[in-house]
Amino acid sequence: MNGSVWSDEQVARAALARLLEPSDNVGLALVAAAGPVEALRIATGGTNCGPQVHRAFLEVLDASGHRVRTDVLTHAIGRWQTRVGALAPLRDLETVRRFGGTLLIPESDWWPAALADLQLGEPLCLWVRGENPVAIPSQQRVVAVVGSRDSTSYGTAVTAEIAAGLVARGLTVVSGGAYGIDAQAHRGALVTAREDHPLPTLGVLACGVDRYYPAGNEGLLREVAQRGLLISEVPPGSSPSRYRFLQRNRLIAALSSVTVVVEARWRSGALSTAHHAALLGRAVGAVPGSVQSPNSAGCHRLLRDGSAICVTDAAEVAELAGPFALETEKKHAELPSLHDGLVVEDLLLLDALPVRASSTVDKLATVAGLSVPGVLAGLGRLETDGLAQRADDGGWRKRHR
Amino acid sequence: MNGSVWSDEQVARAALARLLEPSDNVGLALVAAAGPVEALRIATGGTNCGPQVHRAFLEVLDASGHRVRTDVLTHAIGRWQTRVGALAPLRDLETVRRFGGTLLIPESDWWPAALADLQLGEPLCLWVRGENPVAIPSQQRVVAVVGSRDSTSYGTAVTAEIAAGLVARGLTVVSGGAYGIDAQAHRGALVTAREDHPLPTLGVLACGVDRYYPAGNEGLLREVAQRGLLISEVPPGSSPSRYRFLQRNRLIAALSSVTVVVEARWRSGALSTAHHAALLGRAVGAVPGSVQSPNSAGCHRLLRDGSAICVTDAAEVAELAGPFALETEKKHAELPSLHDGLVVEDLLLLDALPVRASSTVDKLATVAGLSVPGVLAGLGRLETDGLAQRADDGGWRKRHR
Repeated sequence: MNGSVWSDEQVARAALARLLEPSDNVGLALVAAAGPVEALRIATGGTNCGPQVHRAFLEVLDASGHRVRTDVLTHAIGRWQTRVGALAPLRDLETVRRFGGTLLIPESDWWPAALADLQLGEPLCLWVRGENPVAIPSQQRVVAVVGSRDSTSYGTAVTAEIAAGLVARGLTVVSGGAYGIDAQAHRGALVTAREDHPLPTLGVLACGVDRYYPAGNEGLLREVAQRGLLISEVPPGSSPSRYRFLQRNRLIAALSSVTVVVEARWRSGALSTAHHAALLGRAVGAVPGSVQSPNSAGCHRLLRDGSAICVTDAAEVAELAGPFALETEKKHAELPSLHDGLVVEDLLLLDALPVRASSTVDKLATVAGLSVPGVLAGLGRLETDGLAQRADDGGWRKRHR
Repeated sequence: MNGSVWSDEQVARAALARLLEPSDNVGLALVAAAGPVEALRIATGGTNCGPQVHRAFLEVLDASGHRVRTDVLTHAIGRWQTRVGALAPLRDLETVRRFGGTLLIPESDWWPAALADLQLGEPLCLWVRGENPVAIPSQQRVVAVVGSRDSTSYGTAVTAEIAAGLVARGLTVVSGGAYGIDAQAHRGALVTAREDHPLPTLGVLACGVDRYYPAGNEGLLREVAQRGLLISEVPPGSSPSRYRFLQRNRLIAALSSVTVVVEARWRSGALSTAHHAALLGRAVGAVPGSVQSPNSAGCHRLLRDGSAICVTDAAEVAELAGPFALETEKKHAELPSLHDGLVVEDLLLLDALPVRASSTVDKLATVAGLSVPGVLAGLGRLETDGLAQRADDGGWRKRHR
């Protein structure tokens, strides 16, 4: 008992998450052998590792395919010491609670079972931020929609359509909160979700959930935290790093039944997510595009080498997600239009229009994730439908009805 | 002996080609059992079918998986009688010879061995038209580039690039001579081929090789006959029909090591060529495109159901063609640029520019198979390079150098 509302395992894992980088196999093997509370004591140098635990530790490491040296633990403990002084697990837990969040741990009933497929790479814990705490849905109901940061207008349009179609089928869209395709996946999910959707979108961050990174997506990530969830395996205050981005990709893949890459260059981080998904036996979809567009070259690479299935719309993605998605597909067919007859782009635009002040076309393009010609065309349609109007200052706003 | 320069087998097969539609399995089984000369006599009612030949005939038909009724031959002979009066094989052979062509038959050394893969569907003969009679290259050196008639500017641009790249590697581009993708495949091949290329392109027609169909492609088909070959399994004077188009597709697939579909709608004749290629164990490639373009929906369908490999350029197509193409790839890499530094579109445009008279932008677009904006952009580049100039009447012509 640690005298707080948190369990001993939560506190220990919160501390270990600060001590260890994601997928630190030595540390994770120690936790598997000794349990989190004892592992924390050993890792911080408070207790010696007994021979029985040490044997179990070596066995776990050996079984995971690592070449094991007997002094590997001693070396690791030395490595971890630099961070022992910074341990303040109760403060971290309090931070996440202030955001209406919590810390999920494998011992909890709410732990996403799909993460066990990561084996030794299963995260120590997940820091969760969300104003309406809901469970992370089972893998069958989750689809990852990912892609490059430098997306084209084609990529963002297709992303919005796919995310919207998945959410309309009751599925959850997971992505990484980055610029470009990721952001548009979250936007497309949020703009389409009805009030009764359990969880339209889930952002998996490479930094602490108390931070909005990248800064330009602050407004969007705030909305994800309001109407969806932000999760991370690194504790509050942590900065993102290249290593953490790549590790984050494995979580996106593991949480989802399908990973769809909408746009990716020949070398792109999104391909690492697809690669993780394939290794985990999850379905991978790739959206084709112009062979003249370098932003589709990574998708075509996945298609060509047989790593991905060609998907062209939400229905084809849902088909990859399997029976659950197909069941809701039927339900979906009986529902009246969720879009009030508007295309997703126009919903995104409508969502970006201020009610009182006005906004410029350039700003609307940024907020809605649309191209400038796309915004102009959309404003024309919304104006005709009586949903948008010009303000006196020449900008645009929602029209009161 | 028939008193002409043609062999008895050529004359008999020429006559049978007039009597039987392509893939008339009953007639082809009769030819297999009795040989062409005797088969013609039986088919025209000049000789009864002896019991030995009839047994062999039924065995061939049976082995090909047809449900055989013993009176099937009697019925077929009745069916063929309507055409007996029109038989004039020596006249047909003379027609094709006037065009510098010939009649290839399976008994000939020049017969494309790959056609045997069609089994009972192997054509009776091939009517060949070409000013420089050359052999049809072995399957390993032939790639089919096919697609819809209603192509987009994206489709024609990619087609020209792929055809040009294949010809630059010493391969032969086969297509069907239709509008759209087919025409651009022939054009891209012709415009790139150096003088020493054995056979840049091969057009497989659904009508007689004495006809240019469709009429709008007359100039192009004439050039294919001049610098490549036109072939058909139906005799001179024959009109194309829906049935003959579909049968023609099986020849395109059988002659090629790879069939590439560049653009095809969800239901498109080009998919039948791909289907034939797959049934024959040939490689099938599909070029991806925008998921918003209905003209790419057929390609994405092939990719999605695993019937085709994703190909984005000539190098990837050549890889599917196998070792021969890879060998010439090396050779190709050592060659200086075949394009004088021009992109294929500009070569096509340069080729379409008249030397003396002048041409309008619209006409250039039609002849070169380019979009109007593509022609305007290309004229700008050619003018800068000193290769094109405006005529006094406002049109465009080649610039003398």
